[in-house]
Amino acid sequence: MLASEMPDDPDESFVIRCLTSGTQLDRVSAADHVRVGPGDDAAVLTDGTVLTVDAMTEGVHWDVRWSAEDVGRRLVAVNASDVAACGADPTWALLTISLPDPIDAAWVREFTRGVHAALGSVPLIGGDTTRTEGPIHVSMTLGGRLRGEPLLRTGARVGDGIWVSGVLGAASAAFHLGDPACMPALLRPEPPLHLGPLLAERGLASAGMDLSDGLATDLARLCAASDVGARVDPALLPLPDVPQAIEHIAFGDDYQLLVTSSQDLAPHGLTRIGTIVAGQGAVLIGRDWPAAWHHFQRSG
Amino acid sequence: MLASEMPDDPDESFVIRCLTSGTQLDRVSAADHVRVGPGDDAAVLTDGTVLTVDAMTEGVHWDVRWSAEDVGRRLVAVNASDVAACGADPTWALLTISLPDPIDAAWVREFTRGVHAALGSVPLIGGDTTRTEGPIHVSMTLGGRLRGEPLLRTGARVGDGIWVSGVLGAASAAFHLGDPACMPALLRPEPPLHLGPLLAERGLASAGMDLSDGLATDLARLCAASDVGARVDPALLPLPDVPQAIEHIAFGDDYQLLVTSSQDLAPHGLTRIGTIVAGQGAVLIGRDWPAAWHHFQRSG
Repeated sequence: MLASEMPDDPDESFVIRCLTSGTQLDRVSAADHVRVGPGDDAAVLTDGTVLTVDAMTEGVHWDVRWSAEDVGRRLVAVNASDVAACGADPTWALLTISLPDPIDAAWVREFTRGVHAALGSVPLIGGDTTRTEGPIHVSMTLGGRLRGEPLLRTGARVGDGIWVSGVLGAASAAFHLGDPACMPALLRPEPPLHLGPLLAERGLASAGMDLSDGLATDLARLCAASDVGARVDPALLPLPDVPQAIEHIAFGDDYQLLVTSSQDLAPHGLTRIGTIVAGQGAVLIGRDWPAAWHHFQRSG
Repeated sequence: MLASEMPDDPDESFVIRCLTSGTQLDRVSAADHVRVGPGDDAAVLTDGTVLTVDAMTEGVHWDVRWSAEDVGRRLVAVNASDVAACGADPTWALLTISLPDPIDAAWVREFTRGVHAALGSVPLIGGDTTRTEGPIHVSMTLGGRLRGEPLLRTGARVGDGIWVSGVLGAASAAFHLGDPACMPALLRPEPPLHLGPLLAERGLASAGMDLSDGLATDLARLCAASDVGARVDPALLPLPDVPQAIEHIAFGDDYQLLVTSSQDLAPHGLTRIGTIVAGQGAVLIGRDWPAAWHHFQRSG
């Protein structure tokens, strides 16, 4: 989910500015039942409900490499990643499917199998099916419940370690190089759904978000929301075993967790990649940073 | 919102069967926090939250007759109609917009103005913006809160009056005849959002739903859900002032309220059109029922 994030794409940024106009922001501020509105991974209500929605369309979010079951699983995974990154567990789902005429029955059957498999015990409580004259379009709204305080982008403090889960750049390596070992990360991302709720419940993280748009973009968002800077050491990044692996971390679709913490999170399987510092933006230590990090300030 | 409704369209029915498989229904039954799952106007949680989602796509749900502001207002109206028909007031909204490249900035600006205007004080707390290679696609998830018991399709009792709000068939008359007086009903439907919550709060209705797919289809759904029949007198139907007006009530897009009640609801501006009877399906009294009612059993 994005809303008031500020993407690099000026067109998307324009749409988001329209949606988050002054009147709208006043309205969110005035709503006593809303704790966190647009701008984090998910919205958070004061009763502990977490809400997110993600839309995916054929030809943009998937192509012939993805089976219909992959698409169904992915739709759940990208939403569950947002809910988990806020420290919540999913509790219900709503689904929309817009299908061209005639309906591809085999595709629908496989897609819904993927959705049900990925939802596990989370109930699908409603939705909408419509026709479209364009490509297949699906969206999911996922509700969740916090165990404790939400994990937001705003809590990072100077001196905190910067930690990530999993391997970053594998989906990109699969997409661009067709690397077989990386293909599962692209076709069937498996966000670490247990981690966010666990870290939030035990108060182990000061800020957090999921890595959906690439470390460079997402870390910059976390720094901006927390009004801090970051020093990241490229030698510490958990990268896939492919040539020029670091080139791939800007692509996104990692669906791993990015958190800041004053604690040692290595026992929970996370990797420390740097430190939160005073200032704005990220300062990269080391050298040979790829062009994809161009909007970060560089340093020795 | 539909989900396990059984539409006439066999393709859509197939999609819904896939989504509401046995495993899925078991999962909904097992979820203690879910009071009403797929099959009513909206899902209802045990904490009084009401949830619905509707998707709309260019070329199917609107064409050049609708301004972008009309589309934005309509997206809110169709969702608010579902929430209100359950007896709830809307409390938050999530929005997705999928746009083709390049983005039509004027369209987006007008659309979002329509969304914000129709939402009134209801906050838009998040969403997703994506690209598409097809037509514009928008969806809204609307959350609401019950004031009392939910108004469901399942409570109609033999002897209850059948009541509807507003005028039925005006959107159809506008769509098919271009009737100027009816155009607002097509372009800017205004569901009676106060009625559902009021009737539910005061316990004045035994069952209710919104009229989105036409009286014939929707009354049949209410009867099936309540395991009762209906006698409807065509002379009592509130129709627009156009030739063969009764032909238009099967088209849908009325977004008026259909309720059953043992009380007199005329003081609330509703019109009595018939009576709930024992049996199954609707029995039509009077004659000259149009072909669109063919799946209803006819009588004297």
